[in-house]
Amino acid sequence: MRKIGISEIEDIALGAALLGAGGGGDPYVGKLVAIGAVKECGPVTLLSPEEVPDDALIIPIAMMGAPTVLAEKAIGGTEYRTLYDTVSGFFGKPVYAFMPMEAGGVNSMLPIAAAARLGLPLVDVDGMGRAFPELQMVTFTIGGGSATPMALVDEKGNASIFRTITNKWTEELARAVTMACGGSVSVSLYPMEGAFMKKYGVHGIVTRSQRLGSAIRKVKEASASTPEEVFLNITEGFKLFKGKIGDVLREVRGGFNFGKVLLEGIGECKGRQAYVEFQNENLSATVDGRILATTPDLICLVDTETFYPVPTDALKYGKRVMVVGLPCFPLWRTEEGLKLVGPRYFGIDTDYIPLEERQKGGKADV
Amino acid sequence: MRKIGISEIEDIALGAALLGAGGGGDPYVGKLVAIGAVKECGPVTLLSPEEVPDDALIIPIAMMGAPTVLAEKAIGGTEYRTLYDTVSGFFGKPVYAFMPMEAGGVNSMLPIAAAARLGLPLVDVDGMGRAFPELQMVTFTIGGGSATPMALVDEKGNASIFRTITNKWTEELARAVTMACGGSVSVSLYPMEGAFMKKYGVHGIVTRSQRLGSAIRKVKEASASTPEEVFLNITEGFKLFKGKIGDVLREVRGGFNFGKVLLEGIGECKGRQAYVEFQNENLSATVDGRILATTPDLICLVDTETFYPVPTDALKYGKRVMVVGLPCFPLWRTEEGLKLVGPRYFGIDTDYIPLEERQKGGKADV
Repeated sequence: MRKIGISEIEDIALGAALLGAGGGGDPYVGKLVAIGAVKECGPVTLLSPEEVPDDALIIPIAMMGAPTVLAEKAIGGTEYRTLYDTVSGFFGKPVYAFMPMEAGGVNSMLPIAAAARLGLPLVDVDGMGRAFPELQMVTFTIGGGSATPMALVDEKGNASIFRTITNKWTEELARAVTMACGGSVSVSLYPMEGAFMKKYGVHGIVTRSQRLGSAIRKVKEASASTPEEVFLNITEGFKLFKGKIGDVLREVRGGFNFGKVLLEGIGECKGRQAYVEFQNENLSATVDGRILATTPDLICLVDTETFYPVPTDALKYGKRVMVVGLPCFPLWRTEEGLKLVGPRYFGIDTDYIPLEERQKGGKADV
Repeated sequence: MRKIGISEIEDIALGAALLGAGGGGDPYVGKLVAIGAVKECGPVTLLSPEEVPDDALIIPIAMMGAPTVLAEKAIGGTEYRTLYDTVSGFFGKPVYAFMPMEAGGVNSMLPIAAAARLGLPLVDVDGMGRAFPELQMVTFTIGGGSATPMALVDEKGNASIFRTITNKWTEELARAVTMACGGSVSVSLYPMEGAFMKKYGVHGIVTRSQRLGSAIRKVKEASASTPEEVFLNITEGFKLFKGKIGDVLREVRGGFNFGKVLLEGIGECKGRQAYVEFQNENLSATVDGRILATTPDLICLVDTETFYPVPTDALKYGKRVMVVGLPCFPLWRTEEGLKLVGPRYFGIDTDYIPLEERQKGGKADV
């Protein structure tokens, strides 16, 4: 158990944006919401998963809809109380704590704001260990968890609960109400008991985000070696490519941002070509025609000077980025995990090979 | 307390279609659903409002969406169990009985099917005493009742509950989910306790529908006087016009059927002109430029031969109809009632004058 205040939030937002793997929303907007709540209501208690009773009701908090709308429509501050009342009313049982659903600039922050405003603890766990685009893509699905009852509230005070026959129907109905409410709402889905959370959750994700964020901020202060080496050491990441953005192809389809960013090698990669494909989050990194990493491993683009993560919606011609691969949470590498978030699910015609193994095969030619 | 079986359902459907005042859906489709349920599960117990305990939880059952979609998509039979579970779960209290929300070909029938399938009683009460197009147009609104928590289920088993800040938002969110579910769903709204139902409900509406239906069926058997006189006597209705349909103007706007039917006088009305305007239900009847009836009084078109009601979607060139006015439930004639369903709400620029008074003024010239 420890406290999360404003400086911790700054680091968590930065680290979570890296773990967002290109998605997860704008950490600046997310940070403002969390800091605003903590300034008003005081710091948040962070519990390790083991500190939560097995039968306690834990609910993830997230936003649904377009992050660009969130930036304009904002969050009123009453949403979390309404979510709390709706869910605890449904179960006839008080909510014990909140947790994030995914690591990302926005969705790592909103649960902190909720915890601050309700005076409840936050659990150091999530259901992805990164960000993914669809709502069934959580470790809890592997454990047989259901997205519903899913609660959805808007900043005006309207509340809905869904209980659906499949998570696909959850997506359909929740998406329809999200649009009717103006394109951005606060949600709670996959409500669960402590025991289930402990068994299937990604433990320590908030702490990991914070540690990463703090380290990224200090990369340039390090003196022992080059900043790049420091960055790769602290993230335990693999450098896949370094290049200048030559083109960005984007397509909005079915509510998702699909696209591909083309990179021309710089520095030690000069003369080589690479591209990264994405659906909200980065899906695959290909260098000179050879795939070096695929989902569910994390493919992160970072600025070559500041080492700050560059989300897919900030990709621009001429920007210099390093492509870094981070190994995903082990549960994603199981057969069930790969069915949910492996490359073939996203239409990439390759078997999943762990990032580390792909590196062994090809370290020589990078 | 009495039982409702198949022959009662036939009469209720016919009478309710008349009280639908042009709307309320196709009584044939509604009847099939109710008869199917009663054949399978046995007759339904009808309670008078006074037989219901004050603290019992009573929920209206209705369909939302397009009746034309209902006719194709039908009703699975599991919806009522899901509605029951959803609402009783929300309140942590068993549902004591079902009731209809409005009188109409479809919505008078579905609560009978629900009661049969769940083995629960039906209460002889509704919230309109006729049909109206918008969900806030119920006597319970006058009593300060809220449409929410509103439960919505589809034939596949998906369930939602809404709790909104206004009934307008209920409409928005429920309409979005209705569309996402395919255009027609079963709903329960305005859940209430027995005491509130007794105070604001339209008592005896099921029995009145049945009595009207039975009488209409026998109109032509009567020997004492002309069938038309018999019909007007049993309905306690005012004959406003008799004519041949010369034209029907229709417009679908915001999910409603708006329109106007033009009539050329026949029989004793020969040489005269009339029109009836509607928004799902008939709103006003104007003869030779003079308004003879407006909402909330019931304006019903019936076949001049069979005296069966003709709903707005069955209006066709050449059809011969009698326009009949029936006085509405007294609560609709109060200031609060007229704010909800008076002529000005529907954009008709006239004060409400009760049907009977308008007749006194003009009896001579019909």
